Amino acid sequence: MANIRDIAKMAGVSVTTVSRVINDHPYVSEDKRKAVIDVMRKVDYQVNRNAVSLSQGKSHLIGVVVPFVKHPYFGLLIEGIAKQAVENHYHFVLIQTNYEKEREQEALDMLKHKQIDGLIICSHMIELATIEAYQQYGKIVVSENAAGNKSIDSVFVDHYQSFMDALAYLKQKGYKRIGYCIGRESGSNSYFRHLAYKNFLTQYPQKEFVFTENYYFEDGQKVMDEISELTEKPDALLVTSDVVAAGILTACKNAHMKVPEDMAIIGFDNQPIAKMMDITTFEIPIATMGERLFQHVLGKAINRHEELSVNLIERGTV
Amino acid sequence: MANIRDIAKMAGVSVTTVSRVINDHPYVSEDKRKAVIDVMRKVDYQVNRNAVSLSQGKSHLIGVVVPFVKHPYFGLLIEGIAKQAVENHYHFVLIQTNYEKEREQEALDMLKHKQIDGLIICSHMIELATIEAYQQYGKIVVSENAAGNKSIDSVFVDHYQSFMDALAYLKQKGYKRIGYCIGRESGSNSYFRHLAYKNFLTQYPQKEFVFTENYYFEDGQKVMDEISELTEKPDALLVTSDVVAAGILTACKNAHMKVPEDMAIIGFDNQPIAKMMDITTFEIPIATMGERLFQHVLGKAINRHEELSVNLIERGTV
Repeated sequence: MANIRDIAKMAGVSVTTVSRVINDHPYVSEDKRKAVIDVMRKVDYQVNRNAVSLSQGKSHLIGVVVPFVKHPYFGLLIEGIAKQAVENHYHFVLIQTNYEKEREQEALDMLKHKQIDGLIICSHMIELATIEAYQQYGKIVVSENAAGNKSIDSVFVDHYQSFMDALAYLKQKGYKRIGYCIGRESGSNSYFRHLAYKNFLTQYPQKEFVFTENYYFEDGQKVMDEISELTEKPDALLVTSDVVAAGILTACKNAHMKVPEDMAIIGFDNQPIAKMMDITTFEIPIATMGERLFQHVLGKAINRHEELSVNLIERGTV
Repeated sequence: MANIRDIAKMAGVSVTTVSRVINDHPYVSEDKRKAVIDVMRKVDYQVNRNAVSLSQGKSHLIGVVVPFVKHPYFGLLIEGIAKQAVENHYHFVLIQTNYEKEREQEALDMLKHKQIDGLIICSHMIELATIEAYQQYGKIVVSENAAGNKSIDSVFVDHYQSFMDALAYLKQKGYKRIGYCIGRESGSNSYFRHLAYKNFLTQYPQKEFVFTENYYFEDGQKVMDEISELTEKPDALLVTSDVVAAGILTACKNAHMKVPEDMAIIGFDNQPIAKMMDITTFEIPIATMGERLFQHVLGKAINRHEELSVNLIERGTV
């Protein structure tokens, strides 16, 4: 295979000129550029992109950290990220962590070793302060409220306020024993949601109903099984994922329970399944969030922290 | 920042030795290796991974081409791929194509430009013969029956046979107007499924019922809307995705149709939703397929073409 010296010789230019053409450097005359490209085409010269990356200090790759790929929430987030990656001529390395710190550390190390130009962290177990230290190697963006943090960009929705709004809505509709279902207990978003629930219970005392580790449709049955064993049962549930809400609704129907009479359900996200199953939900612009995260990681955002708004969509489950 | 010459000087070794330590070359004494690593730690020396990749001719990245990330089938496939990536200390670049040839071409170009070491193509629009030509730049694996093809590895299930088995099963159960629902019409897997259906209809003549462009739960309603406008309606449906089957089942229930009396449904995949909604389905080992695809792309498979088996799981919808 022809190397850069052969190309230079065949095109009648210097090695430096060939290098400049490969790296799209401005100081090359059009004649010389054309001569080099013609020779490269003739010999089917393969640019080693790693060499180009090295010379430019850029990989044109962005790392994307998600706990699970197959969850519809992260699926939609990746959808938005993928859209912006295409528009900006970037690709992304997907790092599925299953919430293992070791996997998250690998992503941070890829940034440190310049294998990726920036990092989008959709959810994490490693402390934000630890992550912050890696900001020196490239831009890092998180999808949680990191306002007040000077070096890390964030794109988020106000989970505290939307939970408060949902609880107030159920209260106003007459429900008295409100519970909530969530994925993991830890993490910033879960923290704010639990805080809202705690503050609501201080204002309107009732028994606490919290169901954790619910991610998928089939977890809805698990929640209803847990509820069936309680002597005092909730009469309304806030469910942080529409697919879990759909699973709960299906489990209720299978058990001949009436929704919303026996059990009110509010979902989150406004996934298509919520529309089809007529589930009241808080719409979160997930794909838009993915797009904004990508724009932030490329340094194309004006603000460091960006809050997206959430809307209640009233349907038949409350 | 210290460069490789500074490190060599501080450690009292040659530049070549430092380079060998970085690249994990065997011909370095333990003493020298330790001295270099100590100095590197002291000055917090950052290895530029692009430089290492260049010197080794490897990026330790595998490209993964999928049409959609948010579809549960591809979600599970990526799950299996991610598992093997972790075990083999690789990462993967996810290329979502939306079935656009331009996106698939980008993935092939990444292989050509050595940005990735290999490529897993889960579904594609570009002709297999075109893809084959890129095999010279690195290993390519597809998840469709490419047996007979000498250069491209494949991991697949026999869609022709499983469709034939499903049709025979419905026939034997007494159904007389059998239709099928699928995603896209083109592609190798769709081709074999349609061929099975055609051959079945030649053997047992009936009206043809084919519903295309069905990917998600909400598409189930669309299928039932289309059926409601037919004068002659199918009494059984083969549905190539469990989530669509679940959507059809829900739409049937909403329309007060009895399943399987008014409409029999067979899904494919055996996703958790099929178990929860008691849907008869053909189990495809999708996550295993993802794992095997990754082992093939790393050249760790014994066979070039590998067929995984499919099992009928009898539940309540037939």
